[in-house]
Amino acid sequence: MTIMKGLWLEDGALAFKDDLPYPEISGEEALIRVNLAGICATDLELLHGYYAYCGIPGHEFVGEVISAPANPALQGKRVVGEINIACGVCDYCMSGRRTHCVNRTVLGIRNRPGAFADYLSLPISNLYVVPEGLKDEIAVFCEPLAAALQIQEQIHVQPGDRVLLVGAGRLGILIAQTLALTGCDLIVLARYPQQQAILKSFKISVVDHNAIPDQSQDLVVEATGTAEGFTIANQAVRSGGTIVLKSTYKGNTTVNFSQLVVREIRLIGSRCGPFAPALRMLANGLVNPLPLIDSTMALEVGISAFERAAQSGVLKVMIKP
Amino acid sequence: MTIMKGLWLEDGALAFKDDLPYPEISGEEALIRVNLAGICATDLELLHGYYAYCGIPGHEFVGEVISAPANPALQGKRVVGEINIACGVCDYCMSGRRTHCVNRTVLGIRNRPGAFADYLSLPISNLYVVPEGLKDEIAVFCEPLAAALQIQEQIHVQPGDRVLLVGAGRLGILIAQTLALTGCDLIVLARYPQQQAILKSFKISVVDHNAIPDQSQDLVVEATGTAEGFTIANQAVRSGGTIVLKSTYKGNTTVNFSQLVVREIRLIGSRCGPFAPALRMLANGLVNPLPLIDSTMALEVGISAFERAAQSGVLKVMIKP
Repeated sequence: MTIMKGLWLEDGALAFKDDLPYPEISGEEALIRVNLAGICATDLELLHGYYAYCGIPGHEFVGEVISAPANPALQGKRVVGEINIACGVCDYCMSGRRTHCVNRTVLGIRNRPGAFADYLSLPISNLYVVPEGLKDEIAVFCEPLAAALQIQEQIHVQPGDRVLLVGAGRLGILIAQTLALTGCDLIVLARYPQQQAILKSFKISVVDHNAIPDQSQDLVVEATGTAEGFTIANQAVRSGGTIVLKSTYKGNTTVNFSQLVVREIRLIGSRCGPFAPALRMLANGLVNPLPLIDSTMALEVGISAFERAAQSGVLKVMIKP
Repeated sequence: MTIMKGLWLEDGALAFKDDLPYPEISGEEALIRVNLAGICATDLELLHGYYAYCGIPGHEFVGEVISAPANPALQGKRVVGEINIACGVCDYCMSGRRTHCVNRTVLGIRNRPGAFADYLSLPISNLYVVPEGLKDEIAVFCEPLAAALQIQEQIHVQPGDRVLLVGAGRLGILIAQTLALTGCDLIVLARYPQQQAILKSFKISVVDHNAIPDQSQDLVVEATGTAEGFTIANQAVRSGGTIVLKSTYKGNTTVNFSQLVVREIRLIGSRCGPFAPALRMLANGLVNPLPLIDSTMALEVGISAFERAAQSGVLKVMIKP
């Protein structure tokens, strides 16, 4: 058996290992060498027990297909990959909702070794070929950008809408860019000067909390994952408006349901999104993720990379095997 | 000054009075003699401090226009009335969302004497003339039926949808009838034998809690106003599905936001609805509220009427001035 390097999560502790089993692939899967992988908030939450996951973490990646027996034409191609591996036969799969497959495994999150390693495997049907000329440093953002676009898969953001984004972290800045493309009247609450500077470089309005009138926003996207963020969202949204929950939340949140009823507020949970449009938007430059990159570190110092990513205000830390 | 009979709510205590001030009307208002008024859950909650309302309660009514200076043709007409009195100039009003007017008064709920009295006043623009031949006993259900229809103003219930209604009280049975008209696969959790019997008389399926598979419903309407009802709704809704909150809730409810996010659930608060279609559906017999009527009592024994309405399983108690 061939072995490889990778990060290993077990009981909330992360370790670097150089003797991890090499992925074995079934007939419909591809073996992929990881070129670059990004650390996201969910990875950090996994260390704190968000899911009881044991294995190699990491789900944002770009890599090269080493072997794909069922489709040899893929060999040598650079790819990104949809992280939900669906069974194809449950009610969700049969009704076209594969990301909600009840039997799904999720790359680096649930019962499926992830991307912080030399190699990973995914079903061929999960792969999207990266256009030539699109750099790894950009293509690696396909998964979080897809998550940002899921908001617009779920709700219709109109050009005339007043929209508030609460939080401008790794995912928030991608969300801000996608929302700005609708022509909506977008304002963003960003905590850190660096976040504010990036948003301003994109001509996106950064506002102070006190400058947001109560009940003024048609749509609020809550991307902080905190009770405080939800309180701000609830205050800013107009009656009859929508709050999208777009983050990982710890524990339970207290909600005044009567207020939701009287003000007829919509609360929408939002998770994974569509890869094809995300890849298009990266390829044609509609979204520019490069300012998000904080640093790129080797797999061998992956634990330091996680420590760096966990610091307040730090944006995207990449791991390069 | 002329005086009239009515119920009076103050500091959570209800009293019958025979010396209440007669409504004075402004130029754009009509004076209406109340024929019949219904007690709903919100009225019962007002007694428990849902709003700090002091005055005449009651907002479901049918009555006769005694005087309408700005539109004398209305005189003698039977009417029902939209309960939100909007300012017409705030942002909500200007964008067509008058039920969310920030300056609104609400008949019998907020800063506006209500229907449990001999007379009430409302702006002429709030009135809907009841078609001849439509009995008071039916027309009086226009307001709660409008609230039931609000669900379909907010979301598109498709004929192929699997829909669960949790709770079959006064409002629930009206909701059940409106949902059944879409052709959807509707099942209802009804607690009391009488509720079950009414639903069955409408050929609506009543189910046992244990018979609802987890994550099986495209839409769940929560109409119990309890944390237990929400738990059931949350369990029954499919990922990517919708929960409509259609009741008055006491205090705060604890929600696992990460579950909402991972399962991409939509939570929608729903309140007042459109009167015109409600009146059409009562007039053409698409909805039959008559089996809901528990009893009709005189204004003088209004306190007994409230006591009766507060008993478990009792449906609609009417007050007749």
